[in-house]
Amino acid sequence: MIFFKVNKNNKSTHIYQQIYHELKQGILEQRIPANEKLPAKRKLAQTLDVSINSVTNAYEQLIEEGYIYPMERKGYFVENITQFNHHNDTGNLKISNDLKEKELNREGWISLSHMTADISMFPFKEWVKSQNKAIKNHKEELSEISHPQGPYLVRQTIAHMIAVTRGVVCEAEQIVIGTGTQPLVRQLMQMQKNNTKIAVENPGYSRIYTLLKDMQFDVSAVPLDKKGVKVDSIESINPDFLFITPSHQFPTGIIMPISRRIELLNWAALSQNSYIIEDDYDSEFKYGTDNIPSLQSLDRNQRVIYSGTFSKTLLPSLRISYAVLPPDLLRAYRRHYEDWIQGSNSLGLFTLHYFIDSGEYAKHMKRMNHHYEIKRKNLIKELRLQFKEAIHIKDVPAGLHFLAQFKTEKSYEEIEAKARQEKLEIYTLRRFMLDDEPAETSTIELVIGFASIGNEEIAEAVDRLYRVVNFS
Amino acid sequence: MIFFKVNKNNKSTHIYQQIYHELKQGILEQRIPANEKLPAKRKLAQTLDVSINSVTNAYEQLIEEGYIYPMERKGYFVENITQFNHHNDTGNLKISNDLKEKELNREGWISLSHMTADISMFPFKEWVKSQNKAIKNHKEELSEISHPQGPYLVRQTIAHMIAVTRGVVCEAEQIVIGTGTQPLVRQLMQMQKNNTKIAVENPGYSRIYTLLKDMQFDVSAVPLDKKGVKVDSIESINPDFLFITPSHQFPTGIIMPISRRIELLNWAALSQNSYIIEDDYDSEFKYGTDNIPSLQSLDRNQRVIYSGTFSKTLLPSLRISYAVLPPDLLRAYRRHYEDWIQGSNSLGLFTLHYFIDSGEYAKHMKRMNHHYEIKRKNLIKELRLQFKEAIHIKDVPAGLHFLAQFKTEKSYEEIEAKARQEKLEIYTLRRFMLDDEPAETSTIELVIGFASIGNEEIAEAVDRLYRVVNFS
Repeated sequence: MIFFKVNKNNKSTHIYQQIYHELKQGILEQRIPANEKLPAKRKLAQTLDVSINSVTNAYEQLIEEGYIYPMERKGYFVENITQFNHHNDTGNLKISNDLKEKELNREGWISLSHMTADISMFPFKEWVKSQNKAIKNHKEELSEISHPQGPYLVRQTIAHMIAVTRGVVCEAEQIVIGTGTQPLVRQLMQMQKNNTKIAVENPGYSRIYTLLKDMQFDVSAVPLDKKGVKVDSIESINPDFLFITPSHQFPTGIIMPISRRIELLNWAALSQNSYIIEDDYDSEFKYGTDNIPSLQSLDRNQRVIYSGTFSKTLLPSLRISYAVLPPDLLRAYRRHYEDWIQGSNSLGLFTLHYFIDSGEYAKHMKRMNHHYEIKRKNLIKELRLQFKEAIHIKDVPAGLHFLAQFKTEKSYEEIEAKARQEKLEIYTLRRFMLDDEPAETSTIELVIGFASIGNEEIAEAVDRLYRVVNFS
Repeated sequence: MIFFKVNKNNKSTHIYQQIYHELKQGILEQRIPANEKLPAKRKLAQTLDVSINSVTNAYEQLIEEGYIYPMERKGYFVENITQFNHHNDTGNLKISNDLKEKELNREGWISLSHMTADISMFPFKEWVKSQNKAIKNHKEELSEISHPQGPYLVRQTIAHMIAVTRGVVCEAEQIVIGTGTQPLVRQLMQMQKNNTKIAVENPGYSRIYTLLKDMQFDVSAVPLDKKGVKVDSIESINPDFLFITPSHQFPTGIIMPISRRIELLNWAALSQNSYIIEDDYDSEFKYGTDNIPSLQSLDRNQRVIYSGTFSKTLLPSLRISYAVLPPDLLRAYRRHYEDWIQGSNSLGLFTLHYFIDSGEYAKHMKRMNHHYEIKRKNLIKELRLQFKEAIHIKDVPAGLHFLAQFKTEKSYEEIEAKARQEKLEIYTLRRFMLDDEPAETSTIELVIGFASIGNEEIAEAVDRLYRVVNFS
């Protein structure tokens, strides 16, 4: 019945493991049938010429894993292991071609994406120094999951920083750290009733629009005038949440003037149950103009949820963002998410704390503001030189992108296809038109990001763009 | 009308900024009324005894930010800025006491938590070395957001690894990286219809149960027998998704025998539309017993979603987990989440790639298996010495925790309160009983984690536990 040999010279496997393995295979393949009695340990040991101990160990592991069972004074028996049902008889587990990922060959591409940061200037050395402090000082915290809102120390540091830079009035308690604005908005909205009404800017941040639609909320895409989102539309919709980007409207670049800010705050205060989500995603970059105070800093009625990110100021790949919740929402958030695990890596968060605390963050910001200002100027200059009358740039000196209008008979589809062909990564306004297609006119608008382009690449990028807009 | 002075000796503020600031304040406080004409630039320059340039710069910034507007040939006028509505007249923005976080003084505490890893053994030096490679080789990827499922290279490395260690049959395409099992399960479930039926183990992973309940699904908590989740219950509920922890049931520690695995796979195959989520959260730790093959590796009908994590093997604070989706689910996932941004920090992910690739991960696993095995043995020995007949330990040599039953007249509430008093972090079975309270018996069960306790702390921990269970 049982027939196999043990290789005593095999140094890499114990003898008991060989016995275990052979018996297991026999049972799985039903060569040893269910309920069959196994040989007594002593007998098997003799047959195989091994010690009883080896057999005992093998039997114990088989019991542990459920292949055999002992019966008192009777011995060991094979479990009744049901056979597999095979539906997929081909046994072909390869994924089909439509799911295969094509290798993205980025060789030769130039990026005018608005979603990047300039990594060539990132102070990795100082970042790693801060990380060393984090490792040294926070061993215990790093061995655990953190507070659902993120480590208190890090929240404190962020609270102090945004008080100074953005006038945000808050305590560490009110800060919720997350891996991005998108997941933070989802967390917040997951707590709301199904019939919650939300308004977003149009054109606007399409990922947020998609998310909220997907969550089945009643989402309105509200048009803009030259000051930002239209107040009369907001008043007539009277949403429970209004998601806006006042410091540098995405993607149009409008800086919402103080008058519109106050109008919106007054609407939220009167409406009482409404909140404004202020996504301050790139307010840190202003070239030669001061920041207008954040909505949150002007709010006296706790109607504003402020949200910020380190994706633009540090790196998008770090995935560190935060929201500042007014007390009522904070209370609800805590109740709702006491079991929710913070998703941002604490090592990165404590590193951020030391990076800010040591002054490196402020230094980096200063350097990057200067650096981006120069790149922006150069790019705009080159674009104007090349396109002359055929370009109109909305020249708002802020952020890491601008909107430019081009005279062309080409459609958005044609422009997008041609850009791929020219190996130029660039996004068109169409992507951010939320519930309508752009009107057919003799112009198209492009969102031009300048964060990751090198100064030496600018001339080539503008040449490619010229061919994209003017190909025949 | 306008009256303020400029301090020319102030080195830290430009003169134009002082003018800008004074005018802005005047406008906001309505000392300068709406629609009032500002002085001509030349005149204000004379009055303040500054250059015209300074006034021009100040006016330009005020226009930019919307405080004043120019009228051609007429001059500059103050915007009509609505006054704020103040609901909260006290102006008191301090958060109330119920929201304040008490400082957690961990001084003197000993932890028998099941949620930690032993950071004293973590090879930070090698981790930082891998991070250096990541920084050096992936600059471009680090300046961007990554693929929604995580960087391909990292998914490839994980796919290779789990093929070897867990027999998981998959391609890199099928892997979705996430910041934890909880958010991965949420992503997956968010795609499902409202009437989706889900079954989970009881006792079981309460965070997942809470999440699924919160998402308004029809969730059943299914009892266990000695082989794990009961098949007849599963067959009668016939859930669309079954969430289980076969390699080391959480929290009871049951290793699901091969016979039960096959029964469940057969159920899923017959049911056709049902999936099993196999949460393989700590399968890497087995002491003197081999791993039973993962459900996914036995499945021939693509009914298993495998999920794994680096929270136990590396650190919970890293927030790196992953799920392996069968092709049909993958297709749906891609459609649903093309706009979703990967939440795991790419620097950490590329670091993980090099850490695995260089063999450091395997070395670390070997070291930790040995280290945890010793701690586990010592702790169990001490517990048995101290409690004698009053303890029954479910001694399954696997994972980073075990379940122990204590004879005591105390209630769970009493035990939990006394543990806090003794500064002993430990969790009771009650926390993992999903929809029922534990029966009143003369025993209680504790989930005893041994990952973060030092060998030198074991005696003291057991003393405290003795006082917790036997106080009078």
